[in-house]
Amino acid sequence: MIATDMTAMAASPVGRQAVSEALAALTDQVSRNSDSMDVFFILVSGYLVFLMQTGFAMLTAGSVRSKNTKNVLLKNVLDACVGAIAYYLFGFAFAYGTEANSFLGHSDFALSGDRTDFHFFFFQWTFAATAATIVSGSVAERTSFYAYLGYAFFLSGFVYPIVSHWVWGGGWLSTIFTVGAKDFAGDAVVHMVGGFAGLAGATIVGPRLGRFDQDGRVVPMPGHSATLCTLGTFILWFGWYGFNPGSTLGISNTGPDADYTVTAARCAVTTTIAAASAGVTTLIVIKLRDHIFDLLACLNGILAGLVAITASCAWVEVYAALVIGVIGALVYIGAAMLLLMFKIDDPLEAFPIHGAVGVWGAFAVGLFARIELLTLSGYGNDNGWEGVFYGGGGRLLAANCVMIASIAGWTLVMIVPLFVVLNLVGVLRISPEMELIGNDVSKHGGAAYPDDVITTEEKQAGHTIDNLGVDDSLSRADDPTMV
Amino acid sequence: MIATDMTAMAASPVGRQAVSEALAALTDQVSRNSDSMDVFFILVSGYLVFLMQTGFAMLTAGSVRSKNTKNVLLKNVLDACVGAIAYYLFGFAFAYGTEANSFLGHSDFALSGDRTDFHFFFFQWTFAATAATIVSGSVAERTSFYAYLGYAFFLSGFVYPIVSHWVWGGGWLSTIFTVGAKDFAGDAVVHMVGGFAGLAGATIVGPRLGRFDQDGRVVPMPGHSATLCTLGTFILWFGWYGFNPGSTLGISNTGPDADYTVTAARCAVTTTIAAASAGVTTLIVIKLRDHIFDLLACLNGILAGLVAITASCAWVEVYAALVIGVIGALVYIGAAMLLLMFKIDDPLEAFPIHGAVGVWGAFAVGLFARIELLTLSGYGNDNGWEGVFYGGGGRLLAANCVMIASIAGWTLVMIVPLFVVLNLVGVLRISPEMELIGNDVSKHGGAAYPDDVITTEEKQAGHTIDNLGVDDSLSRADDPTMV
Amino acid sequence: MIATDMTAMAASPVGRQAVSEALAALTDQVSRNSDSMDVFFILVSGYLVFLMQTGFAMLTAGSVRSKNTKNVLLKNVLDACVGAIAYYLFGFAFAYGTEANSFLGHSDFALSGDRTDFHFFFFQWTFAATAATIVSGSVAERTSFYAYLGYAFFLSGFVYPIVSHWVWGGGWLSTIFTVGAKDFAGDAVVHMVGGFAGLAGATIVGPRLGRFDQDGRVVPMPGHSATLCTLGTFILWFGWYGFNPGSTLGISNTGPDADYTVTAARCAVTTTIAAASAGVTTLIVIKLRDHIFDLLACLNGILAGLVAITASCAWVEVYAALVIGVIGALVYIGAAMLLLMFKIDDPLEAFPIHGAVGVWGAFAVGLFARIELLTLSGYGNDNGWEGVFYGGGGRLLAANCVMIASIAGWTLVMIVPLFVVLNLVGVLRISPEMELIGNDVSKHGGAAYPDDVITTEEKQAGHTIDNLGVDDSLSRADDPTMV
Repeated sequence: MIATDMTAMAASPVGRQAVSEALAALTDQVSRNSDSMDVFFILVSGYLVFLMQTGFAMLTAGSVRSKNTKNVLLKNVLDACVGAIAYYLFGFAFAYGTEANSFLGHSDFALSGDRTDFHFFFFQWTFAATAATIVSGSVAERTSFYAYLGYAFFLSGFVYPIVSHWVWGGGWLSTIFTVGAKDFAGDAVVHMVGGFAGLAGATIVGPRLGRFDQDGRVVPMPGHSATLCTLGTFILWFGWYGFNPGSTLGISNTGPDADYTVTAARCAVTTTIAAASAGVTTLIVIKLRDHIFDLLACLNGILAGLVAITASCAWVEVYAALVIGVIGALVYIGAAMLLLMFKIDDPLEAFPIHGAVGVWGAFAVGLFARIELLTLSGYGNDNGWEGVFYGGGGRLLAANCVMIASIAGWTLVMIVPLFVVLNLVGVLRISPEMELIGNDVSKHGGAAYPDDVITTEEKQAGHTIDNLGVDDSLSRADDPTMV
Repeated sequence: MIATDMTAMAASPVGRQAVSEALAALTDQVSRNSDSMDVFFILVSGYLVFLMQTGFAMLTAGSVRSKNTKNVLLKNVLDACVGAIAYYLFGFAFAYGTEANSFLGHSDFALSGDRTDFHFFFFQWTFAATAATIVSGSVAERTSFYAYLGYAFFLSGFVYPIVSHWVWGGGWLSTIFTVGAKDFAGDAVVHMVGGFAGLAGATIVGPRLGRFDQDGRVVPMPGHSATLCTLGTFILWFGWYGFNPGSTLGISNTGPDADYTVTAARCAVTTTIAAASAGVTTLIVIKLRDHIFDLLACLNGILAGLVAITASCAWVEVYAALVIGVIGALVYIGAAMLLLMFKIDDPLEAFPIHGAVGVWGAFAVGLFARIELLTLSGYGNDNGWEGVFYGGGGRLLAANCVMIASIAGWTLVMIVPLFVVLNLVGVLRISPEMELIGNDVSKHGGAAYPDDVITTEEKQAGHTIDNLGVDDSLSRADDPTMV
Repeated sequence: MIATDMTAMAASPVGRQAVSEALAALTDQVSRNSDSMDVFFILVSGYLVFLMQTGFAMLTAGSVRSKNTKNVLLKNVLDACVGAIAYYLFGFAFAYGTEANSFLGHSDFALSGDRTDFHFFFFQWTFAATAATIVSGSVAERTSFYAYLGYAFFLSGFVYPIVSHWVWGGGWLSTIFTVGAKDFAGDAVVHMVGGFAGLAGATIVGPRLGRFDQDGRVVPMPGHSATLCTLGTFILWFGWYGFNPGSTLGISNTGPDADYTVTAARCAVTTTIAAASAGVTTLIVIKLRDHIFDLLACLNGILAGLVAITASCAWVEVYAALVIGVIGALVYIGAAMLLLMFKIDDPLEAFPIHGAVGVWGAFAVGLFARIELLTLSGYGNDNGWEGVFYGGGGRLLAANCVMIASIAGWTLVMIVPLFVVLNLVGVLRISPEMELIGNDVSKHGGAAYPDDVITTEEKQAGHTIDNLGVDDSLSRADDPTMV
């Protein structure tokens, strides 16, 4: 419409009033084009972060024994579903309600009010779902389904939203020490919350039966499919390109000082390099330690690299991303060894990867962040503080240390009592019989792979119609004590 | 280029003629930026819808017994391939040919003419492929390959395109009762076509051997991999973010009244909430009925929620999406029970999910659509009619009921005779021997998982080179009666 | 910010100086919007190309026997990781360093200098990783891990970057015969490099044990999962929408003659049609030859179609894409038969698909390219030469033939000596014992699917905790001769 008017205007020169109006209309359209592009970018980024649920599902499924496959898959599916409803009803309001204090928001429950920033809600939901999903890995294969439902709803509806309000929603951590704690895509805000909640869960629920032998030695308990683990890791890596570059919350170059375009592209590169360097580092270290080229360790190393760079991806040089990835891999390997030393059984190594490396990632901001890049990312340049390696006085580092401590503390203070109470009333852990048989047959109606139960002889003869793969006597769990 | 001219212009103030020309050029560039962004958005959305083929493939494969895996995978692959060629040669012309009457288009076959709206063709093809894919699920495990090729080509080249012309291509349903039938992303246009064709197929081809016992009771016949079903469902959910938000057919904010940006973002949120609420609803209902936490039912529930919101995603409030999802889940569960009561065997529950819930979704538009949101989505506000729950007089609901009835009727009238004739000439269903052995060994050169045929003892000794997993006597189907 | 100024301006008409400045500011913003959109487009396209690593990983895993699954997966993972580091340190500099001669670039190592075109680096890295991945398929199941690491680093850090400099980085092939060799998305530049390196590798490392019997006849050696092959192929097809349309390197319509918007959309359509026609052609030809509907052949046919159209996707009519796909399928089938005739064992058929069809695709440019479409894609129209089928004098075809010959020659000259030397010093191929046992147990710590090693009886009893699926005596490869 505007275009038509303008063409007419070019044919017949116009007066000053008309020019002013035309300029105003055009400027408005240009501004709306920028906004549309930013929404488009946030939507696509959110889609990718949502796909990370698929990645987690495949990674978790591959990492457990096949007898618990349906159980962990269902938990992943519900992380998305229950997370969506909890975040819609409560979480988003606590995090980003327009009426808020420094601790939490307290308006816009169920997207009430006149909010139309649906793209922002959508993007934030995908992050909330991620935090809950991390926990499922730590407590896999022996935690009751009701306990799971409880912590998943609590975490995505309350614990996580509060934390995100503190750092991203204008809460107290966003202004601490004037500079404010800084966590670009959520190492402390997302990964530490999931990782520390998982640590609490894995500790309180105890190790899987047989994970440590009578002498306390670790017994290998490999998952049932390295292929699914690889598929999951690749999908997570792919989704991380929504998580990190998407956290610019815009792609248009909105100047005068900020440049989201270059910032987003930088994030894609630093994310890549950190993932790659951490994967290679892990492969080498484990080869030296265990004398095997360990695919699963390499995959976890990649994830460690991705977590390591999450907090700082927009603000560091590419070579720094390489260093952050290498150290992230070492932190992961060290934390995983520590867990086993303390006989804590975390089947997915979710605490080492998301918790411990999350701490490292948030800490690394205080070391490697450059003021020019903070400015470019739209975080302002008034404070003049940056990473200590570039001459910053350590104030950013101090702010981030406070963030690390307070988020770890908050998460544990919220989650430990929940798990302790669930344990005391006896609904935290499934029975040893169920654990032996597996969750799928006892609680979810049968094996994830019914054909596998068919004997080899029957297979060679062709499957017959009465091989249904499910023993009916095992396929229903009417006995409430088994749930 | 323009930028350079302008910089020069700023340095040296210009006359009125130059200003007018500059404004015209700039306006043209701004308008082209909007257009480029819209094409970009449609392409990305189309990529996601295309990926739904992968989702359907994994879901279908996981839902059948392993002996038929290659068969259903090949059908999914061909849905994309045959669908592309059929839609290129005929389908697009029937749906969106520039010369058209109210029944069908009749020009631009094989993209002839000077059409350059390739992005639109691409997006529409991905929808056509979806419709054909739905049918494959309903008739899986016992339908002949030639019968499949016949209906797939017919459906994506003719039946579906006609329907899309009626509603989206300016055909008779788009103006009925002045208001026109309204189906934002295709519940009636896409899902009902696939679902009702599947219903016809499943009914005429008959149930799989052994699906019902001598007393008519249902015999469970679980698919071979719940992991594949989960992977497929997650990918479908992901792809639905192309299907629903993408159906805005643009992301730029093109005012004065329409706002595609907010509309697309709203679609992402309503789609999410409906999927989540339907998944949770199904989980709870099936838990109450069968006393298990049923992963596969929950997955189908999510799909039911996604289908339920497809027709109305742009036009309803978020809380309405939650309600639409809950009811969608109940419709799915009820329809699935009805099918079994009538001894119709639909292995993927494609009719309950896509057909029955598709009806509900199209109906829900007439209940929940808001006139402000219709306007915002670019559907105009001249008519003043909206959903009956917001004071609309029921005319929109009536129009949509006509759409539901005519699309169900058209699909059945086209597809039933095809299946009946195929049945009469004996090429609809494979032989009982083939069904027992499975399609893969009898028709596709061997098992999908050859290693599984190796005996356990051999596995423990390491696979040996002569374990090829395929009995040559079974790997060729030269006998034409077996196809 | 600008918007606010403008609104004020509209209220109070302004002078000529102010108008000129406003126009300049607005023009700058419009130009930056275009740039942001292009970066966004390149990032999204790069994400999709990165996802192709997942596709290759699944396709390769499914195509080998399960005993080598972890081995091929790890190689795919490292193609991304090692490729990223090699391309960051060296490759990008050789290809696109700002200081360059016609043979290679020689500046900007490790993104030094002031480069901020991170999106471009990112996109190019995803292509480099693709080239290395192709080789892994050709030498799968019997090549040593160290040999793999050597050629992967060499290929993505040197061999491929040089080639991309020649054609895309302003090197000698880009101006040959004035018209320059033209390869839109990289048939010669990417696929031929991978395919010919694979051919060299497969020939020198020799066939897998038992691939040919004593009489030289081919012994079928099917991979362990047709489902993974299908998943991988679909993901590759999806990723190809980043590879081909993304190679416009922009989506904004930057006139006066070029139109990246229409070009990108055309690429999506031609890519689709070529994939579809090649898939259907392969299905039919193999049905006629072998009397089976061969899923795996159809998948490879689709990949052949995607490769076939890669070089010309932007420059050909849609019907030409159909023809190019059909011939691509025939070239693939013929090349695969030739390889077996010469007893070259290429488990993934990587040379037929990427090498042979890559040659066809680059050649087809010289036949089918239209000058109007070259212009529209931003490749200029000064030369006046086009495909011979449209009256071009054959100069473009000649230039592309030189490109084909020189890239095949360069790849072989670089890679053959590497493989020969590795063979002479005895680190190219694993021992026959390892090949029999499989790489996974002997080198990677155990089977990819540990549960599968559990006996059927144990399964039916439910998995017990001491069934770890890995025989410890096989799970470590401390003996260096086994690597």
